[in-house]
Amino acid sequence: MLSKIDHLGIAVNDLEEGIRVYEQGLGLEVTHRETLEDQGVVTVSLGIGESTVELLSPTRDDSPVAKFLEQRGPGIHHVAYAVPDIEAALEDARDAGFRLIDEAPRVGAGGKKIAFIHPKSTLGVLSEVVQST
Amino acid sequence: MLSKIDHLGIAVNDLEEGIRVYEQGLGLEVTHRETLEDQGVVTVSLGIGESTVELLSPTRDDSPVAKFLEQRGPGIHHVAYAVPDIEAALEDARDAGFRLIDEAPRVGAGGKKIAFIHPKSTLGVLSEVVQST
Repeated sequence: MLSKIDHLGIAVNDLEEGIRVYEQGLGLEVTHRETLEDQGVVTVSLGIGESTVELLSPTRDDSPVAKFLEQRGPGIHHVAYAVPDIEAALEDARDAGFRLIDEAPRVGAGGKKIAFIHPKSTLGVLSEVVQST
Repeated sequence: MLSKIDHLGIAVNDLEEGIRVYEQGLGLEVTHRETLEDQGVVTVSLGIGESTVELLSPTRDDSPVAKFLEQRGPGIHHVAYAVPDIEAALEDARDAGFRLIDEAPRVGAGGKKIAFIHPKSTLGVLSEVVQST
């Protein structure tokens, strides 16, 4: 069902500091930058192998990422796995008894179909599936 | 400096439950299992693309993973990046002003050379570098 780690979402308070750490400190390169108004977040992707590190910074105080930062501070927010068929993946997840945050796919960064699985079902890890094509 | 996400370390209280979620629920396969006595942890690796998910379960109450679980509950513990030359990677990290947990490489799961970077330097993310060959 899962073909690779698509990206690792890291919540940051200061986006420019985040880019500095991952670009200058760790030598990655920014490949994509996008604001998702409905989720109240700016995402900056940096390529690493077949995956990306996705820095997440809130655009408003009531967004989920702002609340995460308030409660936990900066750190890993979620992991996203690429799947060839997101509808089939959600069906498999339902069959496995997983609690879904998104019962149907919605559009995420890069216009891709995405859906979140509740961390209660995946050992405290907020997990996302992303349609790979 | 970083060539891929080597693995994602996920702390779990119940290793068998963890394996069930990632094998039966998400369809991954266990590729490696090892106890690291010096770190007080059992690691179970499940392959996904060029990376692995590494479940971490404590073998004793005073191990770092046991303390993490006590404080935060199950969830993502660290991310590990593959590097072609770990000594060079640690030198680069030092030059970038990063605080290192391991000033010199030590031996981790699979007999690989590893070193940890302090989360204070990488935006709240406990980061590991792993020599890839």
